[in-house]
Amino acid sequence: MKYLCKIQYVGTDFCGFQVQPNRRTVQGTLNTAVNAAFGRPCKVTGCSRTDSGVHAKEFCVTVDLGGELPIPPEKLPLAVLPHLPPDLSLYDARAVDDAFHPRYSVVRKEYEYLIYNERVPSPFWQNRAWQLPRAIDDVAFDRMVEAASQIPGRRDFASFMAEGSDIKDTVRTVDLCTVTRKDALLTVTVGADGFLYHMVRNIVGTLIDVALGKFDPEDISRIIAARDRTQAGRTAPSDGLYLKSVFY
Amino acid sequence: MKYLCKIQYVGTDFCGFQVQPNRRTVQGTLNTAVNAAFGRPCKVTGCSRTDSGVHAKEFCVTVDLGGELPIPPEKLPLAVLPHLPPDLSLYDARAVDDAFHPRYSVVRKEYEYLIYNERVPSPFWQNRAWQLPRAIDDVAFDRMVEAASQIPGRRDFASFMAEGSDIKDTVRTVDLCTVTRKDALLTVTVGADGFLYHMVRNIVGTLIDVALGKFDPEDISRIIAARDRTQAGRTAPSDGLYLKSVFY
Repeated sequence: MKYLCKIQYVGTDFCGFQVQPNRRTVQGTLNTAVNAAFGRPCKVTGCSRTDSGVHAKEFCVTVDLGGELPIPPEKLPLAVLPHLPPDLSLYDARAVDDAFHPRYSVVRKEYEYLIYNERVPSPFWQNRAWQLPRAIDDVAFDRMVEAASQIPGRRDFASFMAEGSDIKDTVRTVDLCTVTRKDALLTVTVGADGFLYHMVRNIVGTLIDVALGKFDPEDISRIIAARDRTQAGRTAPSDGLYLKSVFY
Repeated sequence: MKYLCKIQYVGTDFCGFQVQPNRRTVQGTLNTAVNAAFGRPCKVTGCSRTDSGVHAKEFCVTVDLGGELPIPPEKLPLAVLPHLPPDLSLYDARAVDDAFHPRYSVVRKEYEYLIYNERVPSPFWQNRAWQLPRAIDDVAFDRMVEAASQIPGRRDFASFMAEGSDIKDTVRTVDLCTVTRKDALLTVTVGADGFLYHMVRNIVGTLIDVALGKFDPEDISRIIAARDRTQAGRTAPSDGLYLKSVFY
């Protein structure tokens, strides 16, 4: 048996999830904390990789201490708490079989991307949203909404994959792509059975390019059909991206 | 003529608003920024004092550069922007007469206090809310709401003033005191024509003491009537407090 845990983190001061030598990572920090709590080595495996600066409101990991669970799962969050830094929390745990893999067992994930749209940046959204000073008016916002509505479907999303990725199968099923606005904050939500490298950030960058007039909403179909990264828009910065939920 | 400006700041890394030697303060930081933008000394005056760690979503200051306004008010935010740190922004400015005083002219202010109520703290609310692990269930929440409803009125609020304050007239008119909840986040909103030192934090601490059973909601009238700080509850920490709006 091992633990399947839900964690949250502010990504700003982490070099992403995956452990790297001489870098502060979520995986490395969590490993050290669990190790300190139980006095024995453990194996932490994540549901996904996230880049430097990307945040997670719900990220899943398995924690394997080798064999028996030392304490009941519901006690794990408070046992690990004293050993975690304030930008990382473990808030839920349950027991799963050794065969369970937190990455291969994922059936769907949802990301949220926040854009703070005011001419002066907000201190409260520093590192936590894309602070975009150029005004997105109602017409531009409607263009974004229309463009977003053309993204869902089972398609080849190679145009939204970062150049240099060596993934062969670039077909994914996006079941949700919406844009909402509340005051100065725009939220893009994307759900899919899987994501290519930088896929959400490239979708968001392209939607902003639609809002600002570089593309028309109708161009989305053409961009996807091209299967060519150079046809799509810019890559939105990492600060605004949040892994929101993971489904098994 | 001088400028009346609206600013925002995350209070965590400031030792409050008011300038102090060898301390990073909002007033000092703003003074330096305006000075750098115009190459001449200025006088920055605030609408209020805030303590270390307290935040502001809307705080008003006057900026006096001595006589003529060097640029139109609407251009001030972008002129100062390059000289401000990311935890402080100036997002609005208009011209006012020299006679206008940003503190004495205030007729009403509104504060917001945020409480994150989960057994494990959230990295996203670190320094930005009171992270309270003890569960406030529906019954406890209803007690808070009832207690809050007894606070508004023109009364002597000495019981909610920090000990050691030397203010003589402790009568204020509170016109709003509400508690709302959305998921794990509780928001206490208090509006008044003026506030005593630590008044909002002492009201919030007392409401939490009501929620957790130390007081009953009916005790509020007695606590206020006592005009005695020792009769009220604890002082809520500074992290959760936000100046929300200032009315002239």
